[in-house]
Amino acid sequence: MALIRSWVESANAPGCPFPLNNLPCGVFSVGEEEARCGMAIGDCVLDLAALEETGLIALDGGPLLDVPFWNEVMGAGPVVWADLRAQVTALLVEGAARRDVVAPFLVPLADVALHLPFLVSEYTDFYAGRHHATNVGTMFRGAENALPPNWLHIPIGYNGRASSVVVSGTEVRRPWGQVKGPQDATPRLAPSARFDIELELGAVVGLSSDGPVTVAEADAMIFGYVLLNDWSARDIQAWEYQPLGPFQAKATATTISPWIVMKAALEPFRVSTPPREVPLLPHLHEPGPMLYDIALEVGLTPEGGTETVISRTNYAEMYYSAAQQLAHHTTCGCPMNVGDLLGSGTISGPTKDSRGSLLELSWGGKEPFPVQGGSRSFIQDNDTLTLRGAARGEGYTIGFGDCTGKVIPALADPYARN
Amino acid sequence: MALIRSWVESANAPGCPFPLNNLPCGVFSVGEEEARCGMAIGDCVLDLAALEETGLIALDGGPLLDVPFWNEVMGAGPVVWADLRAQVTALLVEGAARRDVVAPFLVPLADVALHLPFLVSEYTDFYAGRHHATNVGTMFRGAENALPPNWLHIPIGYNGRASSVVVSGTEVRRPWGQVKGPQDATPRLAPSARFDIELELGAVVGLSSDGPVTVAEADAMIFGYVLLNDWSARDIQAWEYQPLGPFQAKATATTISPWIVMKAALEPFRVSTPPREVPLLPHLHEPGPMLYDIALEVGLTPEGGTETVISRTNYAEMYYSAAQQLAHHTTCGCPMNVGDLLGSGTISGPTKDSRGSLLELSWGGKEPFPVQGGSRSFIQDNDTLTLRGAARGEGYTIGFGDCTGKVIPALADPYARN
Repeated sequence: MALIRSWVESANAPGCPFPLNNLPCGVFSVGEEEARCGMAIGDCVLDLAALEETGLIALDGGPLLDVPFWNEVMGAGPVVWADLRAQVTALLVEGAARRDVVAPFLVPLADVALHLPFLVSEYTDFYAGRHHATNVGTMFRGAENALPPNWLHIPIGYNGRASSVVVSGTEVRRPWGQVKGPQDATPRLAPSARFDIELELGAVVGLSSDGPVTVAEADAMIFGYVLLNDWSARDIQAWEYQPLGPFQAKATATTISPWIVMKAALEPFRVSTPPREVPLLPHLHEPGPMLYDIALEVGLTPEGGTETVISRTNYAEMYYSAAQQLAHHTTCGCPMNVGDLLGSGTISGPTKDSRGSLLELSWGGKEPFPVQGGSRSFIQDNDTLTLRGAARGEGYTIGFGDCTGKVIPALADPYARN
Repeated sequence: MALIRSWVESANAPGCPFPLNNLPCGVFSVGEEEARCGMAIGDCVLDLAALEETGLIALDGGPLLDVPFWNEVMGAGPVVWADLRAQVTALLVEGAARRDVVAPFLVPLADVALHLPFLVSEYTDFYAGRHHATNVGTMFRGAENALPPNWLHIPIGYNGRASSVVVSGTEVRRPWGQVKGPQDATPRLAPSARFDIELELGAVVGLSSDGPVTVAEADAMIFGYVLLNDWSARDIQAWEYQPLGPFQAKATATTISPWIVMKAALEPFRVSTPPREVPLLPHLHEPGPMLYDIALEVGLTPEGGTETVISRTNYAEMYYSAAQQLAHHTTCGCPMNVGDLLGSGTISGPTKDSRGSLLELSWGGKEPFPVQGGSRSFIQDNDTLTLRGAARGEGYTIGFGDCTGKVIPALADPYARN
């Protein structure tokens, strides 16, 4: 697959994250106007809602685009997903006849505010990266018991909090929580001192189901992918998570990229999950490659400083694919809905510099790592953390836009009322 | 507090669950008509949507009632909640002037279908019953390690699956899942053989929040309560729940009663949580009694047989109140929304016959208990399980309606497609 050239020249530039091959889905607004659906192309947003209103785009079941979320398009199904891409491609491709008619519907990215691209129905987070699970398990239980007995048989997941999902750029306030150190006699309420990120990819469910689905069916249900930062308070987590899993440690915020990259844009980058160490049960078998070759990195920028890239890894490191996770999610008959979001789990690579959380990068805080102007074990106030992802084809790149969040100081007294 | 007599004579009958003191909130339909909001009174439903349309009920921000969910009323806030109760009470009270005008808006309960009373935004389940946690902990970890170290300090909770919530009367299909017995070398996919109930009360959140709230503030956010059966596949749970908690074991279905009993109706029945074994941190202190004296029971009816009441207990047995749970839920800043549902956790009493799950009643299956025509360790196909609740005042009873579900056989092959 090569670059599909567009008459939007900026989309053809080497390294541009939004070539015509991508067409990611976002929600934007300009000034005080209402937020609506758009797609990124080069250094602009294409105003899909306005194009639909004028009739330059027409979708079965439409109008679907003059709303501040992509759920209506998703719910319209895969034929509409493909049709929308085809119509937009025809409008933007180099040599398109209607270039002069379409050009007024391009809005510079620099002039828009980006919003959460879809209404998150429910949010599930998985624990499906082998290196991450091994690292964390080794720290907590020792190398010989690193992986729980079920880990190689099911993609372990837990339900997260959909209300915590925010769009890139939203400030994240350091949480308070109940914590108890190993030496403490009793717990106390305190701001988290071990606030962390988790570098993940999120799968956006575009079709509903009401019974068990196969991996192939699950793959067909996925609309697209976002970058996802599962902010995690490790000290709160350590005290609360037994026996029923993480709860308040993961509910402060979950930041996603402003753009959903549709599955169609990622097709050329499909790769297989790694060889199974033990065979999976048949209902988790993959009919083909279900991961994607997406290079990922994490940047940390201290207040007033410059960024240090603290991790570089790849989505292909996952042991389980999103399709396997979604199939597992439905085994018991759990109904899935349009707008459900599945976090991949932390994506760590095999090397020290490819770890997807500060917990792993600093080995539980014991080995602080360097950043510009100092070092870190966990996040300090006013640090900005940025996730980036790029699938690189022949002469083009598929990007998600930065997934960024600045951590602002905890409330002085969370119960003070004016 | 005594019975408030109504001109709807059936509401004054001893033991009627729906006297004028109650006025629980449901969603009903008649034949092919659209579902809408109503309140139960005696053996009837009062058609609130129609009353609002005629102007006999008028609410700030209305119309709010001609929709198939109570979320709009909830979102309107506590002044509207109280105003609605006052207006309906004035229409239905004995001696009301407009009796003849209102009577046509009563629909016999026997003639209506009842639907899910609200849109469930997110669902959280807790583990806050001391006897239940002790019983389960003793079975799994031994009597000396029964309670996890954090149990007496925080109301342990985990996020459940909102899409699994169904209204009473919905059949529940026995789930498939990945299971592995202690003697098995490898896991297998099978229908759950240890399918169970959990007797709970659900708190319905009626106000949103976006930061930590106190217990008093949390109590003010609660709109009302439902009966809740957290169907649980114990064999799936045992294999999956370490380290991140229950997932597929709890996602098949969660049945709630058709009626939300508003907090106002339960005010006369407030009781305190039991004495703390260790002091709670200040943010979890209760400003007053936050539990309710609600007698609860579970009935099991085999196919074609008669019901055996297998458990009798009381909501006052809880160690943590819903207000404490909601306050804890917000500690980290987790946003809460109108329509969030919080399960209390299984409500077991101190005696063998007051246990709120079959797991406890049969002590992990080792001590089958008698039911009409046989015995049970776990649920058998075509068993119907029914939860009931009643707060008993002087000459009146506050009920929730039955919370019932019949367990139908598992799919023969969950992946067969026609």
